[in-house]
Amino acid sequence: MSKDDMTSLDKVLSAAAAVPLTGARAATPTDRAGWLDAAADALDAAADELIPLAHSESHLPTARLTGELKRTTFQARLFADALRTGALTPSRVDPPEANWGSGPRPDLRRGVVPLGPVLVFAASNFPFAFSVFGGDTVSALAAGCPVVVKAHPGHPELSRRTAALVADVLPEGMFALVEGVDPSLAALRDSRIKAVGFTGSTAGGRALYDIAVSRPEPIPFYGELGSVNPVVVTPEGWAERGPDIVAGWLDSLLLGSGQFCTNPGLVFVPDADSFLASVSLAEPGRMLNSRLEEGFRASTDVVAGLLGIVEAVSGPANEQGVAARVFRTTVAELDPKALETEMFGPAGLVVEYGSAQELADALGTVPGQLTGSVHGTATGDAVAAEAVAALSSRVGRVLYNQWPTGVSVSAAQQHGGPYPASTSPLTTSVGLAAIERFQRPVAFQGFPESLLPAELRTADSRGE
Amino acid sequence: MSKDDMTSLDKVLSAAAAVPLTGARAATPTDRAGWLDAAADALDAAADELIPLAHSESHLPTARLTGELKRTTFQARLFADALRTGALTPSRVDPPEANWGSGPRPDLRRGVVPLGPVLVFAASNFPFAFSVFGGDTVSALAAGCPVVVKAHPGHPELSRRTAALVADVLPEGMFALVEGVDPSLAALRDSRIKAVGFTGSTAGGRALYDIAVSRPEPIPFYGELGSVNPVVVTPEGWAERGPDIVAGWLDSLLLGSGQFCTNPGLVFVPDADSFLASVSLAEPGRMLNSRLEEGFRASTDVVAGLLGIVEAVSGPANEQGVAARVFRTTVAELDPKALETEMFGPAGLVVEYGSAQELADALGTVPGQLTGSVHGTATGDAVAAEAVAALSSRVGRVLYNQWPTGVSVSAAQQHGGPYPASTSPLTTSVGLAAIERFQRPVAFQGFPESLLPAELRTADSRGE
Repeated sequence: MSKDDMTSLDKVLSAAAAVPLTGARAATPTDRAGWLDAAADALDAAADELIPLAHSESHLPTARLTGELKRTTFQARLFADALRTGALTPSRVDPPEANWGSGPRPDLRRGVVPLGPVLVFAASNFPFAFSVFGGDTVSALAAGCPVVVKAHPGHPELSRRTAALVADVLPEGMFALVEGVDPSLAALRDSRIKAVGFTGSTAGGRALYDIAVSRPEPIPFYGELGSVNPVVVTPEGWAERGPDIVAGWLDSLLLGSGQFCTNPGLVFVPDADSFLASVSLAEPGRMLNSRLEEGFRASTDVVAGLLGIVEAVSGPANEQGVAARVFRTTVAELDPKALETEMFGPAGLVVEYGSAQELADALGTVPGQLTGSVHGTATGDAVAAEAVAALSSRVGRVLYNQWPTGVSVSAAQQHGGPYPASTSPLTTSVGLAAIERFQRPVAFQGFPESLLPAELRTADSRGE
Repeated sequence: MSKDDMTSLDKVLSAAAAVPLTGARAATPTDRAGWLDAAADALDAAADELIPLAHSESHLPTARLTGELKRTTFQARLFADALRTGALTPSRVDPPEANWGSGPRPDLRRGVVPLGPVLVFAASNFPFAFSVFGGDTVSALAAGCPVVVKAHPGHPELSRRTAALVADVLPEGMFALVEGVDPSLAALRDSRIKAVGFTGSTAGGRALYDIAVSRPEPIPFYGELGSVNPVVVTPEGWAERGPDIVAGWLDSLLLGSGQFCTNPGLVFVPDADSFLASVSLAEPGRMLNSRLEEGFRASTDVVAGLLGIVEAVSGPANEQGVAARVFRTTVAELDPKALETEMFGPAGLVVEYGSAQELADALGTVPGQLTGSVHGTATGDAVAAEAVAALSSRVGRVLYNQWPTGVSVSAAQQHGGPYPASTSPLTTSVGLAAIERFQRPVAFQGFPESLLPAELRTADSRGE
């Protein structure tokens, strides 16, 4: 790391650390809502410039990018609206109670404060929604935390332009972009950084997590890592809706060339022959970059080489030589390594099960996942109920007769799951609850009204 | 670790891992409430046996232990009551919405599921409230998680007897006690354990944290570690209530021979001479064990040896040779090591500050703390407002004109704080919110009513 890079990073971190987080000089929820709206407006106003830039760097279709930018600015405004209603700054008031069972209870009021400067590692597969002004950045800013984004090298120009637009409407110290591996690792190790958001591969995320938790002051690391997103088709579901299930699976699996963390790469079916009979694969669109193309070839070759796995269907290759692939095996022959290998791209594995018990046992061996989907009868059948119970213990979101790609941004969303789907399974990286990762509860005991944070004063407080 | 110990631990962990966490066979919140009430009743009924046992192993006075047992069973019943009202199983329902900004919104319902088997390391200083059936155990059981407690060697017989009473009223696999360092480390490394609760020293807690986060599957480690719990006395507060402040500080500092994690060991005052003029120290009660006596001597000697620190007052020694000690220094001469050194026992450090700016700068260097207290005028003065703002960024609970010992068990309580006060600053280890550490959100998308968990069905659901 050059001396210039070090000086520049130090300035960024000093400015972030100087932002007042609490007290009279700290930004209010209404202030933060204003920032988010202003940044969303600035990005929408620059759509005609940003979308072509994103297209040239990511190879993603313009229509998709147009929708993604809309989703991104909608997300910022959703946080802004919720900040204004007070929904994102929860408070709880316990009034004094002389006859309380743990001894006379004082006046206790619990609110939240920002954690401090947050380092966000941008992802490549959503150049808007999980990048510079994506969900991690927006939820950290909503919490009142200064944000330092490490740009993804897959779209450097778009990152710089987005960052310039965002920085322009935010107060000094609240936002900065850094580029390159060394500066981002130096920031990760710096005591001024208090939390990390990351979306990417399991190996990359784990390496950064290991640094975050081994600092003298360990910090929360919110990593959304790999997932194979298992799907279960029940015998009764298959009888009722077989052709729809195959068509729906292929649509979800191949959407965006399979470059989604919720891509349903693993499907358990009662009869693989009939399931595969209607599987046909089109030529995939161009992937985001050549590194992902190479990763896709490598991971599909790993799965292809496992004992008991057979390539069932393969499609025509695109200009870059990438072809969609579907493999098959049975529960009895299933190599656990197949469950851990995310084929990031247009590929899937069909696993045939025999009895419901065999299915339940197999689901019990699936590592932590972002999502799990069950396709059964419209009103629910017995095998579906067992599969839902098994998947609820292993995933962050369970879907019924629906497909996991297309993650709705809302209050009830949960995008996370047990490791390795996430390094922080109690949190979500999408939806309004994402803010909880960046604010910390503080209780105020015995306070006069004038010294309480505004949202905890009696006139404003909710609770008991 | 002997082969017998290994076999026995394996049985404990297998039984814990076999408990169904989700689906029709999982315990409902009402079931769990019943367990907690039954265990509380069993402990209360055995008070005449348990309290003398606790007294003989801890040297704590019978009156204190009687109060602590009441607090412990009250805590369990508080969780039970809250479970029955649904307050501890939060749910959020987003109904379908065709015109949603991130695309048509499906029916999304977010509930919680238990994390899995939890390993709890018991503390020595609260033989009931932070031990076998303490806050970690109760909040994990409330969440539906099986619990394996590592007994503290400071009160082995009490631990065994408490464990026998608790295990007797809980279902198979939900509760077990293990003893010894090796079995507890083996459990910590075992993939069947999914979260850890710990109360104890910073060094001990960090060593266990390091193991938890470096497992192949890292798990949440909820460690409540050391704290010096700074107190600020403002010039106006001193003028208004000087004698009360000194008396209150000594009561809180010396309570229970200073063996509390919220012991206010560090006090910033505008005039150290007048503050110390009325400080006199009585002979302390016997400490919990000789290891703590040695630790107290060592830590006070470290502080005494720092440059700029002078011993201001010392009291008479008790039979074990332990004497209360109060040191003094100034902000200008304050060695940062004094802020990091918890003197666990009856000792404190008085730090004189000059200007309000000097005070603010000093507070900015205090590491993460469980609590911070401000003593100002009754209605709040300007220096108090600045101190509250500074402490809010560094502690889990801020008190005004009150003292931090005596942690109320209630919904608004926050017992935690930035590292090293806690390894998990977003959570609390005391109060109803402690349950959040052991349950994980799961979203259910597009579900028919019959397959939803009961608390997420339309008839039962709260939210939008």
